[in-house]
Amino acid sequence: MDSEDRLLLRALRREPLARPPVWLMRQAGRYLPEYQEVRRQAGGFLELVKNPELSAEVTLQPIRRYGLDASIVFSDILVPLEAMGMELRFDERGPSFPTPLRTDDDVERLRPLDPAASLGYVGETLERVRAGLPDEVALIGFCGAPFTLASYAIEGGTGRSFLELRPFMYHRTAAFERLMDLLADAVGRHLVYQVEHGAEVVMLFDTWAGTLTPEDYRRFALPWARRALEHVGDRVPRLVFVHGGGHLLDEVAGLPAEGLALDHRIPIGAAFDRYGDRLALMGNLDPAALLSTREDVARRTRAILDAVHGRPGHVLNLGHGVLKTTDPANVAALVEAARA
Amino acid sequence: MDSEDRLLLRALRREPLARPPVWLMRQAGRYLPEYQEVRRQAGGFLELVKNPELSAEVTLQPIRRYGLDASIVFSDILVPLEAMGMELRFDERGPSFPTPLRTDDDVERLRPLDPAASLGYVGETLERVRAGLPDEVALIGFCGAPFTLASYAIEGGTGRSFLELRPFMYHRTAAFERLMDLLADAVGRHLVYQVEHGAEVVMLFDTWAGTLTPEDYRRFALPWARRALEHVGDRVPRLVFVHGGGHLLDEVAGLPAEGLALDHRIPIGAAFDRYGDRLALMGNLDPAALLSTREDVARRTRAILDAVHGRPGHVLNLGHGVLKTTDPANVAALVEAARA
Repeated sequence: MDSEDRLLLRALRREPLARPPVWLMRQAGRYLPEYQEVRRQAGGFLELVKNPELSAEVTLQPIRRYGLDASIVFSDILVPLEAMGMELRFDERGPSFPTPLRTDDDVERLRPLDPAASLGYVGETLERVRAGLPDEVALIGFCGAPFTLASYAIEGGTGRSFLELRPFMYHRTAAFERLMDLLADAVGRHLVYQVEHGAEVVMLFDTWAGTLTPEDYRRFALPWARRALEHVGDRVPRLVFVHGGGHLLDEVAGLPAEGLALDHRIPIGAAFDRYGDRLALMGNLDPAALLSTREDVARRTRAILDAVHGRPGHVLNLGHGVLKTTDPANVAALVEAARA
Repeated sequence: MDSEDRLLLRALRREPLARPPVWLMRQAGRYLPEYQEVRRQAGGFLELVKNPELSAEVTLQPIRRYGLDASIVFSDILVPLEAMGMELRFDERGPSFPTPLRTDDDVERLRPLDPAASLGYVGETLERVRAGLPDEVALIGFCGAPFTLASYAIEGGTGRSFLELRPFMYHRTAAFERLMDLLADAVGRHLVYQVEHGAEVVMLFDTWAGTLTPEDYRRFALPWARRALEHVGDRVPRLVFVHGGGHLLDEVAGLPAEGLALDHRIPIGAAFDRYGDRLALMGNLDPAALLSTREDVARRTRAILDAVHGRPGHVLNLGHGVLKTTDPANVAALVEAARA
């Protein structure tokens, strides 16, 4: 099959389809016992990410189990920061950078990203995944957006109030912009590198930009998300996700991308009314609702399909990643309802 | 001065005013050196809350420093849960309940709330604050909303994904509803008790309901927020705040309340267009933007005033609490800009 004919690619071109393609953010992950098994083999999370053989294996697991229409390479949004010289750790509380950026000089010490030299494991994983994927399944590459990378690099971890990031933005604005320039090019290069190694779609995850007001999003995040996406140009379709970004949707919809991912707070029907004539739309199904019963998951899936009402450009997905305590049978209920 | 003539009360009746009243969520707190001093004297946070003399003192500190138009009693949204029999602790990571509710029987062990018997320190603090307040300053009482209390009681602390709460809601629905009944009456009684001890306005804080979809908010949170507010009836004006609840605003605006607090993601001008004919509106100024310069804080304050454009029912406030690293001079810049 020509990659162009895969269901996800057709949906992103907004072709009329008999049913929407289905895939789930974090579909490869801790809720699957077969993932836990490979994770134990690998040692830590980052060891797994950097092991192309095992990474490819966990990427393929949900495809085998559920027959999903797209596969997203198993990696992490933060790997470019490590490749630029920042020590990165993962533990039960999430990612952390023990030596965060706090001064103008810290920014200058970051290396510009050369993905072939330092992120070769992502390229190799993508090639292994493509080789193992059924012909009809599309392959997605991804990266964190520049603002989200800057948040982690300055906070040193997952901030809730961003007590380090905000003063850096407001009081060291020139250094912040220099950092964002570096990150936008790093993200852009990493996305292009993934396309060169088999990604047929790329997705930009802006996990923390949704904490900004529209004014601050336009000033401190949007220009660099644009710059990263422009690196990709028209090589492959681009998806953008701003978690908690319902108040920024008009801004995000103006980025150079072919599709938007919606979290569970943004009703997909209303989003189709507003943007469906020019963008593909996916998401909106609450991942926490997958902790409910199978019947309820099926009902909520049908509610999403009803709200979209067959309009072209629909990709069925969650509004965020699958949660670690999700019953795999509930994911099956979702996939079945989406196909019925 | 009759309490009815205080600026905040007039604003909540949507009377035309020369300028909006100003107060700030968490205006008494760690960003003030005089608070830190009293906090050290008290020992821990909960010790401070339970000491009416010291609680009244920290409540009055920001009034003395800034001449604000309203005072909110220094307390915590979670004290009713402790008074119902749950052990409550505070440390650097926030509140926690070492013995959370996990079974139907756990719910049955909660005691119905009798505020006079177990929350007398709140009543005494309110009386002391009123005695120390300038005549023109209004006094606000508050409580966590039933859904937020249930979140903490079931999770045992600050959840991000609510891996305990959601299964409880979906799989033990009868016990969840029994818990919410208990909590709605507890919250309602606690608010009425505060009115009886001097609160001239009450505010309901729903910190976590914004994580729900509109469907789940209507099913699992809204009826009990309504029931709590109905306890207060027309005794005093009621304010409601659902943090991160921009997608729930139509639902929240239907609660029996006189005013809505808006977080920094909900543009106040648009909220006035939609609800300003029947509700007072406050908030929207980003607390994290108070980590910027004084000039920028003043500019953002003026932008809020411009967006409201003098419409009646405006109360100037932040979109969430003052952050602990805020420069007190920036709060002064806000207050000055609001009065200019």
